[in-house]
Order: sequence, then structure tokens, then C-alpha cells
Amino acid sequence: MALARIARSNLRKSGGAFRSYAHENIMFNERTYTTKCSLLSNLDSKLDGNFSQISRSKEQNYMNFSMRGIAGTPYNQHASANAQRVEEESESELEDDQIRYAGLEATKPGEKPRVVVLGTGWAACRFLKGLDTKIYDVVCISPRNHMVFTPLLASTCVGTLEFRSVAEPVGRIQDAISKDPNSYFFLASCTGIDTNKHEVYCEVASNGGLSREPYQFKVAYDKLVIAAGAKPLTFGIKGVKENAFFLREVNHAQEIRKRLLLNLMLSENPGTSEEEKKRLLHCVVIGGGPTGVEFSGELSDFILSDVRERYTHVKDYIHVTLIEANEILSSFDVSLRQYAIKHLTKSGVRLMRGVVKEVHPQKLILSDGTEVPYGLLVWSTGVGPSEFVKKLNFPSSPGGRIGVDQWMRVPSVEDVFALGDCAGFLEQTGRPVLPALAQVAERQGKFLVELFNKIGKQNGGKALSANGIQLGDPFVYKHLGSMASVGGYKALVDLRQSKDANGLSLAGFFSWLMWRSAYLTRVLSWRNRFYVAVNWGTTFVFGRDNSRI
Amino acid sequence: MALARIARSNLRKSGGAFRSYAHENIMFNERTYTTKCSLLSNLDSKLDGNFSQISRSKEQNYMNFSMRGIAGTPYNQHASANAQRVEEESESELEDDQIRYAGLEATKPGEKPRVVVLGTGWAACRFLKGLDTKIYDVVCISPRNHMVFTPLLASTCVGTLEFRSVAEPVGRIQDAISKDPNSYFFLASCTGIDTNKHEVYCEVASNGGLSREPYQFKVAYDKLVIAAGAKPLTFGIKGVKENAFFLREVNHAQEIRKRLLLNLMLSENPGTSEEEKKRLLHCVVIGGGPTGVEFSGELSDFILSDVRERYTHVKDYIHVTLIEANEILSSFDVSLRQYAIKHLTKSGVRLMRGVVKEVHPQKLILSDGTEVPYGLLVWSTGVGPSEFVKKLNFPSSPGGRIGVDQWMRVPSVEDVFALGDCAGFLEQTGRPVLPALAQVAERQGKFLVELFNKIGKQNGGKALSANGIQLGDPFVYKHLGSMASVGGYKALVDLRQSKDANGLSLAGFFSWLMWRSAYLTRVLSWRNRFYVAVNWGTTFVFGRDNSRI
Repeated sequence: MALARIARSNLRKSGGAFRSYAHENIMFNERTYTTKCSLLSNLDSKLDGNFSQISRSKEQNYMNFSMRGIAGTPYNQHASANAQRVEEESESELEDDQIRYAGLEATKPGEKPRVVVLGTGWAACRFLKGLDTKIYDVVCISPRNHMVFTPLLASTCVGTLEFRSVAEPVGRIQDAISKDPNSYFFLASCTGIDTNKHEVYCEVASNGGLSREPYQFKVAYDKLVIAAGAKPLTFGIKGVKENAFFLREVNHAQEIRKRLLLNLMLSENPGTSEEEKKRLLHCVVIGGGPTGVEFSGELSDFILSDVRERYTHVKDYIHVTLIEANEILSSFDVSLRQYAIKHLTKSGVRLMRGVVKEVHPQKLILSDGTEVPYGLLVWSTGVGPSEFVKKLNFPSSPGGRIGVDQWMRVPSVEDVFALGDCAGFLEQTGRPVLPALAQVAERQGKFLVELFNKIGKQNGGKALSANGIQLGDPFVYKHLGSMASVGGYKALVDLRQSKDANGLSLAGFFSWLMWRSAYLTRVLSWRNRFYVAVNWGTTFVFGRDNSRI
Repeated sequence: MALARIARSNLRKSGGAFRSYAHENIMFNERTYTTKCSLLSNLDSKLDGNFSQISRSKEQNYMNFSMRGIAGTPYNQHASANAQRVEEESESELEDDQIRYAGLEATKPGEKPRVVVLGTGWAACRFLKGLDTKIYDVVCISPRNHMVFTPLLASTCVGTLEFRSVAEPVGRIQDAISKDPNSYFFLASCTGIDTNKHEVYCEVASNGGLSREPYQFKVAYDKLVIAAGAKPLTFGIKGVKENAFFLREVNHAQEIRKRLLLNLMLSENPGTSEEEKKRLLHCVVIGGGPTGVEFSGELSDFILSDVRERYTHVKDYIHVTLIEANEILSSFDVSLRQYAIKHLTKSGVRLMRGVVKEVHPQKLILSDGTEVPYGLLVWSTGVGPSEFVKKLNFPSSPGGRIGVDQWMRVPSVEDVFALGDCAGFLEQTGRPVLPALAQVAERQGKFLVELFNKIGKQNGGKALSANGIQLGDPFVYKHLGSMASVGGYKALVDLRQSKDANGLSLAGFFSWLMWRSAYLTRVLSWRNRFYVAVNWGTTFVFGRDNSRI
């Protein structure tokens, strides 16, 4: 609390130059670090005074990164990394002097400054794409090695598009990651940040079951860009995580497609009762935002064309229900909302108003006691701060995101920026927290990378060396409009800049053409642009593929 | 044993007409069935006498098919299926009279005869494709709902081709399955056959974790086609199943691709030792048959083009080793073998002669004691009879497959046929067991479906009603030649009809063109033919996709 207050009092309201914020000791709620200073080259002199402030209380001696159980490799030979295996935590303090940590050490004076980017979503990838790698080395850390073109993800669940057509490998978005000797992609999750030491701590997200313990390492940064995204909101409702599918990642879409095809086949099994067939083939979507509506539209397209033709035994049992507590597409113009309701209803989607109370494996219960049996449940009720973001003791924006100023800086700590769904303007900026949209994240990524390239050209790339550089205009978000497809070659396009503004709003086939062309041109690579077009073509000609692979 | 002997003595060596073989009681080694006769319509009179012979010993009262735990559905309303939930096995015998079994009952006199096909491999799908559905209803039962174009599967492991391009949904191979009211596809495994009652027993392969017990049902057949395939041979070597990947299904290829990309990323992690990097990126292939060689070739292509360009930090650590106990590509012409060895070695594949003794999670041990550390292990040493085939007490061919005569019939039981990798000619036919090749299976499928269509037109489709119908010429296999790609736009084409015959054999770029065009024209659907061509094109232009999804 005190921390947040100090941070806020430090926040300057007008744009200007970088300066050293007070070095607060940013610690973690759950895990604190007992550290022994290793070589931190150019940071040593400036930061030394603060080390003693770092809490020495410990639940876990986190800095003793153990190797992946490899015997016979006491010290590795990695150019800028050192590791030692520590068997027992209790021993570690005794051995403090000998411990060297596996990881990328701070950059040396002659080297390019290192930008560390956490995440591979819209914000992170737009940033990565634009980064001038003649100025910076870049390290991207994320539990997935690709960006997901989220607006088209709903289409992959029923086979309109293929999964790979909406996934873009990060090494192709920023070539340097694949090719430059000092730029990297690490498949890992960030578990903590030490803003004084300018280091992030990471844990390998998946090791394919190869070792007993997760492999941990650290990466020193000159500048840190946090674009780690948000997590789906479940409002603490019992059973959601266990039984519902989210729709945020490619593997979510893969699981939904598998379940849908499985249920279609299971319902054909001899001896399946009428009631059970109806349950298996009842697809329930919770949340009437653009994702929920687009997914419902895709499902109804799938049912009206492919299920009718290819699953004739059970075609009359399949139904889609969209449950929303308030209005569907509440950010859209009222005439578009009405159009969407009419169109979805005509396509066979049942719209239902209700609040979910509990979710069980085969049914959900609404707050009025209604029981809704389901075979497939997709949960799409927006996003909120992730555990990682909550764990960071940074000042926070309304809603619990990482609080930033209008230059995307995290106040009170130097060289840390946050953007996308994990960040929000601090209250003192007088600006509202922006919605968690791809459009916002992408625009912020673009803004920040231009800022970085500018600072970099003025030799402000290194840690703590951007003081006095003019940052220029702050970030201003201008909404370009919203689009949502509703199935059946129909879409909504709302070009108003805000909910209360006037402006063009369209619905129908022409909007659908706009929707498709807009997405086709916004897909990042030529390869995926080509594949999206080819997928759309083959779906039109041959129908959707229904191999369950 | 006695059974097999009787069966063999019954086997006629010359072609002729169908006749009733002695009705042996085909039971199962592991599970026997306690049954109570339900309505078996037209089979009743003929089979009644045999019911008493069915063993009543039991491990499990298998015919009490329990519903998937659905309360309130005592009897289902499925047209030709009945089910009752039985809570306790011990109660079931008391309730015998009331029990009705979920499943498809035997066809009635006015209905089309029902062909039940077990499997969705080359043999089954070629059979399904050609079946005259004006004559027959068809039920296909398999744990996967698609055919895999196995010769191109190796290409999908490294992203040269996409997974869906080599998978063909069975409902598109035989339209009737999707559209005809009495034709079905069931996603299930066959667990047993009662040849007297003309019934197969099935268990749902995957229910997505929805219920406590596997759902079971039965399907009555007029004719049964067993094309359930084989399983990979591991020769009882310890650790193979736990640690090695096979390469027979699309999900195998998916797992291999995931592991390969994971290991490439893990090896970039800071602090990874030289030794560990080498291990992670050591890809070991066991078995030098066409699959092993093609996979090694694909891997070396991937390394030489994509890894070199996109994983510059670790490109020098990745290696492929192909281990074979004897000769690689032993069925090919000696000059082609030499070409393959030369080409693979030039591409960086290490060829090693050795016999695997044990497999551990991160290393394998050869019989001479050599330890081979690996990060990826692919096992491709041929196939042998599956547990299902071993469990059937049918007469068997040399090598333990289901023994058939030259018309693909299983002697001693009426209306049962077997083909593809699970079947082999009985010793008495004087013909050798054919190799487990797609080519053989496809040809057998074609032969059998033509036989079926012919019998069907003469009203021999119903159970036990093909007596006296001339079958015509027996199946004769004529080998058209073998092909294998070795990577780097090179392939081998061996057009000799047998190992000792003379004939054309080619190697190089022209062969590779032949290889590609041959496969392109043999891919079953236009959709997949199109996608294979598009995948090849984009791989050539853009390189392979490396999103780990």
C-alpha cells in the first residue's frame, strides 16, 4: 500500500524525459529472494546501495537455480551463463559465495542493450515486429512460441480455418530471435522480477516430462516490456475451470473441436437415449461478447451445413445456447445488437438471459435454479489480471492491472514498461483503463516500439541511461471500430469511435466481406494470409474437415 | 490348438462356392460371454442349436452393457437398440430375462444385408470406398474416424506437410456412413466376436472422461470384414513403449513434432550444458525400413534448411542417428541401398549397426553395451499381430495373423473375412504371408469389395446365404514396386516385382518427382490432394512452420 502511494506521488502527469524514480524494493507477495550479488557489471555502482533493502525472509531460496538433474556438468560452458546444482536449500546459504546462477548476465558497456519482452500476444508481437535490432538485442520469454490471431480463433473450432493458419511463430515475427547471436526466445514463464537488479526469473513452462523439477533461470535486462496478457474471468464460480473450455489459445480451440466431434460420434452410438443425445449435442456458450457471439455463429454455420449433411442420424439433436447475464454485444450500436439477435435466433441459436451459479461435469445451474445439461461448454466472459500480475507489487490501475503512465512506463521503477491486457492507466493519469482488445494491444505495441527505437538512437537503450531524453507525445487511443461475424456470411461493423458517439454502423453480407478482408490483411505473415484464404476457399468448396486428429 | 487343426482340415485348397463351415464356438482367451438370447430374427432357427455350446464360464458378465450412468433412462428409444442399466454384476443373472442389449440387432429379411467393417486403414477404407451401398448397409467400427495416408506421415513430423493433409475422414470415403439411415460409423474398439451369433462386441474408445466406465454395445452383422491392422513390434525390449515414439498415427506425428520443437527450444535455455544440448538434439531412429529412412531424410531436410536458418544458436548440436540391426532398406535393390547410404551419410545422418537392449528415458543401451543418449527416439521396426488379433481363436497364418484363404475368408466360420496387416494366407494355401504394406492392403480391399458387390448382386449378402455362389478367381498379389524418399529432393524407385527379379530401379531427383506425383495422385480426396500440393508449395517458398501448437 505504502509502495503504491509513493509510486503515485512520483507519477508525473505531463510528458517529458526519463528520470530515475525512487528505487523501491519490488518484492513478491508469495516468494521473496535471498540473493548474493553476482557480477552485475555496469549496474553494480548504482544499485549496490539497495541490496540490503531486499527482504531476506524466505519461503524458498529461489535463486539457487538447480540444473535439470544432469550429473557430471557442475559448470556449464554457456558463454554468458553459469549454473551449479544445489541439492539442498539449507546448504545454499553456506555456499553463497560459490554460487553462480544460470542465465543471461547484464550486458556489458560495449554490447547492444537488451530488451526483454514477456509475452507473445498482440502487444508483445507488434512490439517485437517493429524493434530496431541494429540498436537492441531482444529476448522474448513466453510459455508459447507463437502469436495467436485471436479474432479468427473461433473459426478454427469447427474447421472453417485450420489451427496453423491463425498461429504465427514468434521467430518469424522478429527474425533476430532466430538469427542474431544475442537474441533469444525462451519457452518459459516469468515467475518474478527484481527491478533493482534489473533481472527477471523464469521457469521452463514444459519440459515434456523429462525431469523431476522445473528448470529455472534468470535473464538480466536493460529494458523490460511486460505484455504477459490476462486470464479468463471465472468470477470464482465453482466448476468452471474443471468443466468449461476457454477460447484464448490454439490448444483450447483444438480441445473444443475434438470434444465437438467426439460428442457427435458418441451420440450415434447404439443404445444412446434421446435425453443423452440431446445433452451430448447441446453446445452452451457463456458470455455474449464478440468471442461468444462469433463462436455461436460459427457453430450454427457448422450445424446448418456440415452436421446436416454429414451427421444425418443426429442432426436434429444438436443445439446451441448462448447465455448472457446482460445484453449481448453490449459495446455495439443498438441497431446492430438487434440485427445480431435476430440473425442468431434465425440460425437456431437460443439466446438466454441468466447468471451461472455452478458448473457440474454434465450440467450447469443458473442462479434461478434452472438446470442446463450440456455436452460442450465454452466460457467467454472476458478477462482479468493473471496470477503473475497480481503477484507483482507494482502500483495498479483500477481493475488490478499493472498501472502505467501515458508512455506505458511503470512508475517508481526504472526501465519497466507494461502494455496490452496486463496493463492499465493509473488513476492519476485521468484516463480510463482501455478495454482488453487486440486493437488496443497492437496500437500500444506500435507506440512503444517507436518510443524504444527513438530512445535507442539517442543512446538511451542501456539500463538507467534514458534520463533526459524527450519522449514526445503520450499514447492516445483512438478506437477504429468493432467487428463481429454472426455466421451465415453476415457480420456487424460498428465504426463509431465510442459507445455514445455517432458514426457508421453496418450489418449484413457487405459487412461480412469487410470483416473477412480486414482480417485477411491484418493476418501477420504472407504464409498465413495465404492459408487463411485457402482454408476459406476449401471450406466453401468441400465443407469442413471432420477428422478427429 | 484343436480348433486350429479342425479349421485347417476344413480349408479347401481350390476356389469354389461359399459353404457352411462347421460352426466352431469362437471364444476369447480372456473374456467369455454369458448370454441370454435376444431377438435374432432370421438367425434364430439356424443358430439356436449352437447356443448351448457357448461357454458359460465367466470373468465378466460382458453382455450386460451398462449405460453411461444416465439416470432416468431405463429403456432407450433407439429404433433398433435396447439398453438397461445394470448396477451390480451379481444381480445381472437374476435379471437375465429382462435384459435387452444395446446395439444393432440382426437385419430382418426385407432389409439390406449389413456389412460390418473393423478398421479404417488402407484395406478397410479401400473396401468401404468401393462398396455398393445400394446392395449393402455398412457399419464401420474403429477407434479413429479417419484414414491416415501413411506414406506421407513422416513428412508431417517436421512440418513439410500438415497433419490434416494426410488424414481422410471415413465419412467422406464412404458417403453412406454419413447419410444413409442404416449405415454408421462408431468410434469404438472391437473387443470380441461371436461368429455363431454373427455379432461383434465393442467398447467406446474414448469418451472424453465423461463417464466412469467404458460404454459397451454390440453390432450384428451379415458379413464381417476384419481389417483392424497390426501393432508396432517392440520385441519385448524394456522401455520402448514408455520412451519411444511410434510413427503410425497422426497423433504420433503430432507428438514427435511437439517434442522436436520443444527440444530445440529447451536446448536454447541459458545454462544448458554442452552435453545436455547434444542429448536434447540427438534424434535417434530405430529401424532402417522405408519409414525409418524417410523419417531420417525428412529430419535431415528440416535440419539442413530450417534449423540452420531459424535455430542458429543450436544448429551445430542437432544430429540424426539411424540404428538398424541388419541392412537398411533390405527389400530394395542393392544399388539403391548403396545410393541411400551414400545420400543419407552426405546429409548428415549417422548410420549405425546395432541391436537395442534397453531403453531409458534419456538414453538407450545397445547389446554391445554402447550407451546412446537421445532427446527424441522414433521406433520403426515393423509390425506384428495386435492383442485383439491374438485374442481371437481363429486359425492363424505363419507369424500369428488371422489365417485366410485366397478369397480372404476365415475358414471354419461363415461370413467372416480378414485382410490387410491383420491377415495372412494360411500355410495350406501354399502362398507366402504378404508384407505389411499399404499396397497389399489396398489391393486386398479392392479385391474383396468387388467380390462383395458380386455376391450381393446374386442375393448372397445376408448371413449364411452365399452358399453356391461362384467366387471367381482368387486374390493374386502382384507387387508394383517400392518407393522411398531419402530427403534432399531425392528418392528411390524399385520397380522389380520381387527381391530376386530383374527390373527397373532408379534413384535421384527424377525418382523423387515420381515419388511425389505417385503419392499426389494416390491421396484419396481432391481436398487432400490440393492441400498436399499447397503444403509442398508453401514449404518450398516459406520454409516449414515451427509454431508449437
